[in-house]
Amino acid sequence: MPTTAAPHLGPTQKALQQALADVAKRFSAELSSDLPCVQTLADHAEKYRGKMLRPQLVLACGAVFDPSALAPEPRQDLSIAAAVVEMIHLATLVHDDVLDDADLRRNGPTIRALQGNEAAVMLGDYLISHAYRMCTRLDRPERESVSRRMAGVTNTVCEGELLQLEHRGDWALSERTYLEIVRRKTGALVGACCALPQWLANDPDPVLEQGLFAFGEKIGIAFQIADDVLDLAADPDRLGKPLGQDLATGKLTLPWVCFFEQASASEADQTRALLDRIATAAEREGAPAVLADPAFSRALDRLRESGALLTAENRARDVARRACEWAETSLPPGPGLDMILEMASRAAARRY
Amino acid sequence: MPTTAAPHLGPTQKALQQALADVAKRFSAELSSDLPCVQTLADHAEKYRGKMLRPQLVLACGAVFDPSALAPEPRQDLSIAAAVVEMIHLATLVHDDVLDDADLRRNGPTIRALQGNEAAVMLGDYLISHAYRMCTRLDRPERESVSRRMAGVTNTVCEGELLQLEHRGDWALSERTYLEIVRRKTGALVGACCALPQWLANDPDPVLEQGLFAFGEKIGIAFQIADDVLDLAADPDRLGKPLGQDLATGKLTLPWVCFFEQASASEADQTRALLDRIATAAEREGAPAVLADPAFSRALDRLRESGALLTAENRARDVARRACEWAETSLPPGPGLDMILEMASRAAARRY
Repeated sequence: MPTTAAPHLGPTQKALQQALADVAKRFSAELSSDLPCVQTLADHAEKYRGKMLRPQLVLACGAVFDPSALAPEPRQDLSIAAAVVEMIHLATLVHDDVLDDADLRRNGPTIRALQGNEAAVMLGDYLISHAYRMCTRLDRPERESVSRRMAGVTNTVCEGELLQLEHRGDWALSERTYLEIVRRKTGALVGACCALPQWLANDPDPVLEQGLFAFGEKIGIAFQIADDVLDLAADPDRLGKPLGQDLATGKLTLPWVCFFEQASASEADQTRALLDRIATAAEREGAPAVLADPAFSRALDRLRESGALLTAENRARDVARRACEWAETSLPPGPGLDMILEMASRAAARRY
Repeated sequence: MPTTAAPHLGPTQKALQQALADVAKRFSAELSSDLPCVQTLADHAEKYRGKMLRPQLVLACGAVFDPSALAPEPRQDLSIAAAVVEMIHLATLVHDDVLDDADLRRNGPTIRALQGNEAAVMLGDYLISHAYRMCTRLDRPERESVSRRMAGVTNTVCEGELLQLEHRGDWALSERTYLEIVRRKTGALVGACCALPQWLANDPDPVLEQGLFAFGEKIGIAFQIADDVLDLAADPDRLGKPLGQDLATGKLTLPWVCFFEQASASEADQTRALLDRIATAAEREGAPAVLADPAFSRALDRLRESGALLTAENRARDVARRACEWAETSLPPGPGLDMILEMASRAAARRY
């Protein structure tokens, strides 16, 4: 993200990167353990950390109301909040890899591939309990408990994952259910990122809180749709993992939903049967073997030719655009607002 | 537990069971979800609930200082605390079954056996986030955050599980490391149960807090040792799962540690090689097939003949006795104290 920011955002972007370094330091310090085996796992999990999109949103949304959010040493509560959301996000990634039988993430082996599902389950739990412990430092008697809000958010994330599991292998998934899954499993935590600066305020404005949460939810949804498109259309080397992982684990994503909306009944039936064969074979033979199969390439070709990938991308852009419209009319102008508008647009249009 | 309580504890036991019903009601209400798929899983997980040993300890330790802890509608904060610890315990059971590839618990199929590891991982996360959310209701500005303490406890539990994972297949495990694992993975949460009534007090006594925590830790350790003995010596039908699960998942428990302490070098070597073969075969062929193997029966016979099962049982009793000695000299007499003394003794001497 830093290398390609719009030119007028240069100084803000630089300040954000400095502030993020403070968050990263706090994150590592928090995870240190006196048990060597735990420390090794925690160190490895830290490598999952990417651009820290979620901490960036906490700080940038903080900067909308308080420029000191982007000081080299940002306001301590914001920095803690940013570390908390990243740790919860990391925990969900570690557990997601168990759910998806994933062996690669960011071009490196996953925890479950290295140490087995058992260690991945426990490391995820360890990260969650650390995040909650850190979060209690944000609680103040004069306002609603931040811990309570964050526990509610992680609850929603779990519900989204469980709903997604229920629809595994459901090749007739509706757009409505897809969006419900994505809003819960991805949108809720990003919503919390954007609302957190208000949750930490001494005089929070409930309407603004809800608006910021909905703004973040939309960024999360746009990001997830873009992610789902990338799983079918990216350069696998740059993506850091093989294409088609969602199908291999029985997840129907928006590009396919859009494809079925415009396909003839017979084409839809044929494709659904093919997707079912792919997922069944992946369960039996493992994902990599199946995704190298020509039948999978043919399905991808059909998807591309139909224009459904573009339709899905446009859906992501629409969601992001609606988020930006709300922000432009509801938030005070300044570098903070410019930054989050840029981030919202970027979420919907990632390229690998 | 209710059927065999010492006669003089009858009325206290009856009051405790009534108070537990309030906790169970709160527990179920908290877990209700608007998503049918989540509700189904939560309902199934509730079937894991056994005698609610941990909530019993919260209420009984509460009754040591405040008789209203055992009223038909117990003090609300104690009832919430009791539901919180039971929910955290349930989450660890659900995740444990993933760690152990377990298909049976309390004579019924586990979540992972019914719905796969994925649902079990997510359901565990869902239970944890619910527990944390409920726990925030106990936080008060005038005392240390109960949420913070509980997050620290779950952290310790995870560390214990990770330490145990690190020592999988370590057939030369020392008694010291065994006890360190057990203190963290089982002792910490039981310690919290006993300390919680003090954590909720307006004028907590730090020495008493620590004493109660250590008392609970010891009950947890005694309970875990007894559990590990049962895994090698119980009637499988009454236990609700096959014997030898710990070995099948590479866990060396105290009876074996005691066995190796008194065995000749050559006998120890032979037995370690056998245990290694059992665990390796269980990983390849699945636990049930292996545990039906005559080699496993022979190993169990050798263990029984050596007296190591009794030695381990005595260790559990020693730990429980030390817990009781502290309680008798440090806590005010009354039905609350009588109850927890009974529970501590019972933890070390379970029979199936």
